Amino acid sequence: MALDHTHDPAARSWLASAQAGGCDFPIQNLPFAEFRLAGTQEAFRGGVAIGDQVVDLAALAAAGTLDGPALQAARACAQPVLNDFFALGPAAWRALRHALFAALNEDAPAADADAVRACLRPQAAIEFALPARVGDYTDFYTSIDHALNIGRLLKPDDPITPNFQWIPIAYHGRVSTLGVSGQAFHRPMGQTLAPGAKAPSYGPCARLDYELELGIYIGRGNAAGEAIPLERAEDHVFGICLLNDWSARDIQFWEMAPLGPFLAKNFATTVSPWIVTMDALAPYRSAWTRPAEHPQPLPYLDSQGNREHGAIDIRLEVWLESQRDRDEADGPTRLSGTSFRHQYWSIAQMVAHHTAGGCSLNPGDLFGSGTISGPGPGEAGAMIELTRGGQAPIALANGESRGFLQDGDAVMLRGWCEKPGAARIGFGESRGTVLACRLPG
Amino acid sequence: MALDHTHDPAARSWLASAQAGGCDFPIQNLPFAEFRLAGTQEAFRGGVAIGDQVVDLAALAAAGTLDGPALQAARACAQPVLNDFFALGPAAWRALRHALFAALNEDAPAADADAVRACLRPQAAIEFALPARVGDYTDFYTSIDHALNIGRLLKPDDPITPNFQWIPIAYHGRVSTLGVSGQAFHRPMGQTLAPGAKAPSYGPCARLDYELELGIYIGRGNAAGEAIPLERAEDHVFGICLLNDWSARDIQFWEMAPLGPFLAKNFATTVSPWIVTMDALAPYRSAWTRPAEHPQPLPYLDSQGNREHGAIDIRLEVWLESQRDRDEADGPTRLSGTSFRHQYWSIAQMVAHHTAGGCSLNPGDLFGSGTISGPGPGEAGAMIELTRGGQAPIALANGESRGFLQDGDAVMLRGWCEKPGAARIGFGESRGTVLACRLPG
Repeated sequence: MALDHTHDPAARSWLASAQAGGCDFPIQNLPFAEFRLAGTQEAFRGGVAIGDQVVDLAALAAAGTLDGPALQAARACAQPVLNDFFALGPAAWRALRHALFAALNEDAPAADADAVRACLRPQAAIEFALPARVGDYTDFYTSIDHALNIGRLLKPDDPITPNFQWIPIAYHGRVSTLGVSGQAFHRPMGQTLAPGAKAPSYGPCARLDYELELGIYIGRGNAAGEAIPLERAEDHVFGICLLNDWSARDIQFWEMAPLGPFLAKNFATTVSPWIVTMDALAPYRSAWTRPAEHPQPLPYLDSQGNREHGAIDIRLEVWLESQRDRDEADGPTRLSGTSFRHQYWSIAQMVAHHTAGGCSLNPGDLFGSGTISGPGPGEAGAMIELTRGGQAPIALANGESRGFLQDGDAVMLRGWCEKPGAARIGFGESRGTVLACRLPG
Repeated sequence: MALDHTHDPAARSWLASAQAGGCDFPIQNLPFAEFRLAGTQEAFRGGVAIGDQVVDLAALAAAGTLDGPALQAARACAQPVLNDFFALGPAAWRALRHALFAALNEDAPAADADAVRACLRPQAAIEFALPARVGDYTDFYTSIDHALNIGRLLKPDDPITPNFQWIPIAYHGRVSTLGVSGQAFHRPMGQTLAPGAKAPSYGPCARLDYELELGIYIGRGNAAGEAIPLERAEDHVFGICLLNDWSARDIQFWEMAPLGPFLAKNFATTVSPWIVTMDALAPYRSAWTRPAEHPQPLPYLDSQGNREHGAIDIRLEVWLESQRDRDEADGPTRLSGTSFRHQYWSIAQMVAHHTAGGCSLNPGDLFGSGTISGPGPGEAGAMIELTRGGQAPIALANGESRGFLQDGDAVMLRGWCEKPGAARIGFGESRGTVLACRLPG
């Protein structure tokens, strides 16, 4: 978690928009995405956000101003997925970060600044793709407040399973329906069992929900049979995005015993386009703590480093914009807000556990953190928690209310880091929209 | 399920080994794999088995004797994965099948036979790769005898969940550790909770098991939000292989509530190299039946066609070869045998259910059928069933016994179809070997 000059809060870019108030992308951030000019058939290529612009890394790699590991890294980023860049490992990621920081800095030599300026494209004119070819997507379940909130609805006397405090619980998710921010999807159909009914029926989901999560991209993988030890786990993590694990609660509760959620989750998962690197997140690390009266981790999930700085204080919010909001030009409603620092298991523990049995990870694999709910009221990361299973609908700013999501609703996830003595850096947005159910024809 | 001349049991190839007794690969079969000459760095390419040979489809595509859709199909098969071939759809698959059948037939024009003969490579000299780039792997749970056998061990009074008879239950599995026959893997480590213990411990799996399954390759996919109706489901299926879903039972039972198996299954999954096409399986179709006293499928999972020929009579066996068997040149032991025709849900029902909520499938996606256990004694597809959770070890032919798998054990799955009035066709073998646990260092 060592800090270097790229974390200096006083650093400034020659690009004025990077210093704008509330900007997610100052020079201390430099997140990666795959983009092209919107509405074209250009090839997608890697880019790095700065202010309201993106640095086209394919153009920069060809510009002749980079060399060594930074050039090799930029060339890997010129491809339509970032997998080869991820596979290069932390030294290459850092070399490119440092080169971009130098060239974007207000103190940069004019020639370097000019070369990068020629590679800038306005963010307002671009569209995004998934940043990686995801080989496997794993969804964790690591917020104890989320687990308790859900468990109390279903089993008030026994809200969490005994393994929760021992295992960063996870299951494999669906890759084919991963989408980048802007994804719109039809309300799923499925089997549900109505209360008191003797037989299920098939129809549109009536309890559609979102889940506030972070997405974690694996940088370098491991060979099958070779576990990644906890103390080296973060060397295998490239960075973090926002992730919405859309969930059909009525389908979920009927289908999930004994093998877990399936159709309830596999119709859509929306990630934000920008990946904030672990390097950029270094200033916002915090201690990973476990209440003394709770079970403490087994040795393979415990280390001094993880206890000292395993957590990350990423502030998170969920916003809802209804069809009426758009029709009447009202603003969206903030549904909740919390921080990732409360999570019961850390990212390093997720990586160590995932590989502890011999499972291999590959560059570009994606983890979902699991729903992120904090301990306080208004900190829940899913609507089922906020509305107590739909029993206590929440009011929107425009006078509507919601027990679950309605057609036309857009859900936006936002995230950022800030603290005294450090810059504010942001994640941009993950936005997804619910379309009406597409009835079989 | 229409039969054509390629199903004529009297058809013979000019290649004598295709008519050998017990041969899995007569001219009526023609299964696909990805292969290269063993021990070389050649590119993998598609091949079709005939007798003890394989037709090199890259060579055949270049030979100049194919044309039209068969040539297009063979060219797609020249690649190191069959995904593009799968995406061409049933008419292209059938065109290539018919062209190969004609050229391999004893009545083939000499020029055509000579062209194919020049493309033959001996199976004894080749090695295999996974035949497709699997985007998503889904494991089903569709044998009621398996579910009852396992359920009675865990919950004798309530052995299966109420959804089992309504839903072809499934969960998402791990792609990164899929391996082709010959796969060897280290016994996994993991958390387990010993009987009566208050806290789990981390160590080598002590209850390592196999699961006899079939693997089902998706040929053509569907767009997200567009369900595949039951009556067209098999148009989206390319073919079937053998699949061993290795399972760590002690890890599984501690980790799997509430979100399903994870480390217990994701360390290795072994498939056979040859994919037997749905066309080749047409003669062995049988009625899909559901006892009248059981719940009948909801309309989206029910059709006259599925009831008439939804099942397939694929005979299956599990064999175990221990280290001592190899050391002393003893033969393996047959552990069990059954047929896929008993399965509670059909392949078409799996496809229809998987897409019923809006999930997209892609060419090369793989389904596991779930463990295949038949109704009789000796028909169980996993060791935990045969040994009643390890309580009743089974005797091997060499005098050893097994409650669960030991290091050095190789498990072989075999499958074939035969019936009066049809040829016997086989699946070859899926073989995997358990290596000693690799302790973290």
